[in-house]
Amino acid sequence: MTQYKYILEEKDLPTHWYNVIPDMKTPPPPYRHPATLDLLGPDDLAPIFPQALIEQEVSQERLIEIPDEVQDILKMWRPSPLYRASRWEKVLDTPAKIYYKWEGVSPPGSHKPNTAVAQCYYAKEEGLEGFATETGAGQWGSALCFATQIFGMKCKVFMVTISYHQKPYRRIAMETWGGTVVPSPSSETKAGRDILAVDPETSGSLGIAISEAIEYAVTHDGWKYSLGSVVNFVLLHQTVVGLEAMKQMEMAGDYPDILIGCVGGGSNFAGLFLPFIKDKLDGTKPALRVINVESTACPSLTRGLYAYDWGDTAKTGPVVKMHTVGHGFIPAPVHAGGLRYHGMSPIICRLLEDRFVEARAYHQNTVFEAAQSFARAEGFIVAPETAHAIKAVYDEAMACKESGESKVILFNNSGHGHFDLEAYDSYHLKRLPDFELEDTKIQKALEELPQIPE
Amino acid sequence: MTQYKYILEEKDLPTHWYNVIPDMKTPPPPYRHPATLDLLGPDDLAPIFPQALIEQEVSQERLIEIPDEVQDILKMWRPSPLYRASRWEKVLDTPAKIYYKWEGVSPPGSHKPNTAVAQCYYAKEEGLEGFATETGAGQWGSALCFATQIFGMKCKVFMVTISYHQKPYRRIAMETWGGTVVPSPSSETKAGRDILAVDPETSGSLGIAISEAIEYAVTHDGWKYSLGSVVNFVLLHQTVVGLEAMKQMEMAGDYPDILIGCVGGGSNFAGLFLPFIKDKLDGTKPALRVINVESTACPSLTRGLYAYDWGDTAKTGPVVKMHTVGHGFIPAPVHAGGLRYHGMSPIICRLLEDRFVEARAYHQNTVFEAAQSFARAEGFIVAPETAHAIKAVYDEAMACKESGESKVILFNNSGHGHFDLEAYDSYHLKRLPDFELEDTKIQKALEELPQIPE
Repeated sequence: MTQYKYILEEKDLPTHWYNVIPDMKTPPPPYRHPATLDLLGPDDLAPIFPQALIEQEVSQERLIEIPDEVQDILKMWRPSPLYRASRWEKVLDTPAKIYYKWEGVSPPGSHKPNTAVAQCYYAKEEGLEGFATETGAGQWGSALCFATQIFGMKCKVFMVTISYHQKPYRRIAMETWGGTVVPSPSSETKAGRDILAVDPETSGSLGIAISEAIEYAVTHDGWKYSLGSVVNFVLLHQTVVGLEAMKQMEMAGDYPDILIGCVGGGSNFAGLFLPFIKDKLDGTKPALRVINVESTACPSLTRGLYAYDWGDTAKTGPVVKMHTVGHGFIPAPVHAGGLRYHGMSPIICRLLEDRFVEARAYHQNTVFEAAQSFARAEGFIVAPETAHAIKAVYDEAMACKESGESKVILFNNSGHGHFDLEAYDSYHLKRLPDFELEDTKIQKALEELPQIPE
Repeated sequence: MTQYKYILEEKDLPTHWYNVIPDMKTPPPPYRHPATLDLLGPDDLAPIFPQALIEQEVSQERLIEIPDEVQDILKMWRPSPLYRASRWEKVLDTPAKIYYKWEGVSPPGSHKPNTAVAQCYYAKEEGLEGFATETGAGQWGSALCFATQIFGMKCKVFMVTISYHQKPYRRIAMETWGGTVVPSPSSETKAGRDILAVDPETSGSLGIAISEAIEYAVTHDGWKYSLGSVVNFVLLHQTVVGLEAMKQMEMAGDYPDILIGCVGGGSNFAGLFLPFIKDKLDGTKPALRVINVESTACPSLTRGLYAYDWGDTAKTGPVVKMHTVGHGFIPAPVHAGGLRYHGMSPIICRLLEDRFVEARAYHQNTVFEAAQSFARAEGFIVAPETAHAIKAVYDEAMACKESGESKVILFNNSGHGHFDLEAYDSYHLKRLPDFELEDTKIQKALEELPQIPE
């Protein structure tokens, strides 16, 4: 009989996170101060992030121990299953072998709690009362509300307006876990009020929501800011995904030829591929392909510039060297809210520059077509973000069919789409727009980049 | 460290279903013909159900083999995990040990595909083209759309009007899996048109939706009717839940003192408790308590009559001896759509009559209060139906706190509430009504019972 799932026991949960930075040929360059543009010291980050996370952000240790309490909470749903997509392979009639890591089993339904739990642990250690954060489609906000609740902390979520209205169930879920949610831009912060004064009808962006969350955190005693992607420590916490997957691929007796994931800030996919790419960085697996999939609505890797830019729209967070379409860029209102970030993880950007990974972008209709095909074969209805990865898997599986090659494809099925079904409805009703993005819009946003002598 | 999950491998999936009927002191009495009220023969059921299922309905075999292909598909998500609710125990500060079987891991998000897959297998064997069915909250409809899609069959779902509007995401999910969904009562059947003529604003009921689905099935060549609960063969297919749980409780080193589940037609809970109640029927575990939890809006076990009644409102399906509030009873529009059925599984009813199981009913506000407490501790946001079970667990855990007893409680966490979040929103906003049901309403519905000499 077919084996669908490769399952690890709780005792097989990784005890350490994998930090890729010491293994990178060129590490990502340091952050700069949002106002002075000088190199940023750890003290500059102290008002924003918990101290332990700032240390992890710049750590040169290859392996960093996962605290016992964090492991204990992760075991509420981890290790997550690795699936063989046997039924979808049959439907596609492809010789490719398709595997996926299924992160939808966590209570908030995605990979996001892997870092939310860790961040809350360190925040609680530091005696913090609450976390402020941004969320796009709501996966990250859900995860942080879930985690803060477990640690007895408070959570304030600035949810990008377009997603707040597209995905009401996400808001309700966050409230069920005890969080407070407002649409962003909001009138609760100066950053939000400034944007609303210019464009009261804006659909919002992750860049704006980040500005609001940082402002809220630094203006409230006992509160700090929590970020769900982009920065090094978030990618670090997500490596449990790839570390588990390595063991599970061994159980399956295969090693991936191609790794695929969707990228907004990059954390779900980096969590999967970093433990594998170690084998490419050290020359053991030179042919391993790593495909980052983004939305054509916000194509930082495929059409952005590799340059220093502010991580947020109000220019209050660190200035980061990354592929960016500009901190003032407002993406079209695609349903994949988690892919509407103007920048990208500096680690992924550096790996792209050094040709260790590749990138591509898709329009949303073709993405939902692939996701529906997947749902009808494998059962799982995935998030619009994850659907981008599935479209790339589809294309690679079809290329194998063409060439007759039996490549091993592994992708991160990063979350379910149960709160995103309006998007599937629009797709069924042929009401899903494919937005064409003009070069001039990106060029205009890129004119506002900081001027830093390199 | 805490162990949260007891996990079985795919090879540990049960190979046989457990049929309780040969072990019952008094088996449920035979069905009667909807028109003549005479005893029903297998031929009478042939236009409605696939032949193999009719045979299972009256089987005297204790163990019935699960076909290989059905096992293969069940392995897409089974065996499901058994959880220890350690974090909730701590929050409740109870000495009780609380375990739950988590059926939300299936692609449609509940226990329902356990029987949907089996029914489609036999339908396909018989060469059928499609299944018509009813659904309340949509768990059953989702499961059947998922399963028919896998077997290349069509699916037509009559969804109770109140749920169709309360839970639009359920409809979209069914459509994503390839099904066709209409609100019931609809104008597509005579049964539906007759009801609409009398009350065009009706919220609908499972009884009406069943009538429509049966009518649709018998008037379309190559189509039959599929039912997601109540009848013996559905309970049979759900026993995989309890058979797995028995192994998992052994791994945990505990045996339940109390089993708890919500009951609409009774299949999720019977699936869990039947393999255990064998030990009570044969006298091995005389103290085992089995608590059926229903909604006060449709209290068939706690306020209904044990009598022959039609299974559906239009009196086209079999007449069944069960606890009923009357086939014409239209329950208040509670969010637990799956608990809005006027009758109950004849097996459970017989066991209640013989005092092997007990029953209780709750109003919805107290149920959501318990479910929110559970979600904040354990993470999982459960379906409104399942929330009824959780309220009973809460009460039993509190009784243990009072008495100091460390009882072992096992409940069926039958499905997630991701498509039911509007209900949680109403609860948060204090807009959730608790409907008081007057005796006269039940009495009036019971006046319409068939007159059968016993």
